[in-house]
Amino acid sequence: MKKIAVILSGCGVFDGSEIHEAVLTMLAITQQGAQYSCFAPDIDQHHVINHLTGEESQGETRNVLVESARIARGEVADIKTLAVDEFDAVILPGGFGAAKNLSDFAFSGDKCQLQADVLTACQAFAKANKAAGYICIAPAMIPLVYGKGAKMTIGTDKDTAAAVTAMGAEHLNCPVDEIVIDKELKLVSTPAYMLAGNMAEAASGINLLVKEVLAMA
Amino acid sequence: MKKIAVILSGCGVFDGSEIHEAVLTMLAITQQGAQYSCFAPDIDQHHVINHLTGEESQGETRNVLVESARIARGEVADIKTLAVDEFDAVILPGGFGAAKNLSDFAFSGDKCQLQADVLTACQAFAKANKAAGYICIAPAMIPLVYGKGAKMTIGTDKDTAAAVTAMGAEHLNCPVDEIVIDKELKLVSTPAYMLAGNMAEAASGINLLVKEVLAMA
Repeated sequence: MKKIAVILSGCGVFDGSEIHEAVLTMLAITQQGAQYSCFAPDIDQHHVINHLTGEESQGETRNVLVESARIARGEVADIKTLAVDEFDAVILPGGFGAAKNLSDFAFSGDKCQLQADVLTACQAFAKANKAAGYICIAPAMIPLVYGKGAKMTIGTDKDTAAAVTAMGAEHLNCPVDEIVIDKELKLVSTPAYMLAGNMAEAASGINLLVKEVLAMA
Repeated sequence: MKKIAVILSGCGVFDGSEIHEAVLTMLAITQQGAQYSCFAPDIDQHHVINHLTGEESQGETRNVLVESARIARGEVADIKTLAVDEFDAVILPGGFGAAKNLSDFAFSGDKCQLQADVLTACQAFAKANKAAGYICIAPAMIPLVYGKGAKMTIGTDKDTAAAVTAMGAEHLNCPVDEIVIDKELKLVSTPAYMLAGNMAEAASGINLLVKEVLAMA
């Protein structure tokens, strides 16, 4: 049975992992006959957003690993312990956590950096030429993991596409129910909630991404 | 298009809504051609559990409505505003939030009470003879909403079954991929993570529950 590492970034679209994308990823992996293990960095979130009001919850701190455990029903490990040789592939769901906690793309755009432990883990999969799937805004990390020229998508948003292009990616527009594949890099991306109007739309692209990642794994 | 009210109880299996069950419910509703709107009570959670350690996070308070907004991507309303005549049915996912926030079943067992606003909303659906689905541990609330004799399931756990039987329910053992239907009451229940070993198993019963609720709605 193929084993997939899923990297989470908290629990909630505005300051962590997009919950629907994370659950849909884990569901697709399970329904397609593979297994997943969840990982997250043991760091404070960039901030906490009240998801009802959209405002920052001033003075509150939450830990990315601890909050990710909510999506993972407690079964999540520090990404520092991720042994890449035990896994066939890695998948990163989206949500602002990918752009605020795993990287600072939300604030620094094409000047962004990846969190050190996340960079180490993602680059280890890339160097081993193991399959990888990046969902929603998570593909903004691809240029920092794979270097210049990687084929990828963040959907159709012009500003975001311009930023990842400036970072060296080859951005391809992609509808919500499709995926972009870089065969050489064994790298798959899909827009999900960068474009999805509802959860079924997000699921369509995520199911395809998981299918392709498992086929390449 | 049929409209379903989904009642959430926070965000995380140990102190709120079971995230997978909530997302699978919303996915099934969307994929089966209906719409959902999310509601939750505007109250503090009973407590906050660190989902990584399983321990209570002493001194921390979180609000059920605010945390539910994480699952609902911000689109959740106070259950006090739930206008039953605008909906065809109601569904309650599980998680300890159903037994700690929507009710106190986790602490008081067969002597439990429902949170007042939740009781008002659920009883309004029952009185209107509108379809309802209760998932996982949420069916423990059924005797307080429907009175004695309602057919329901919480899976196969003997202690939990004994408690709901003492409250007046007619409990039927049920495997994870099936549902129990009370046709007269238009009431459906399924065990989900009371029994599920993985997300695909939970999905099998939840998909059936949503299908039956929509058929009766």
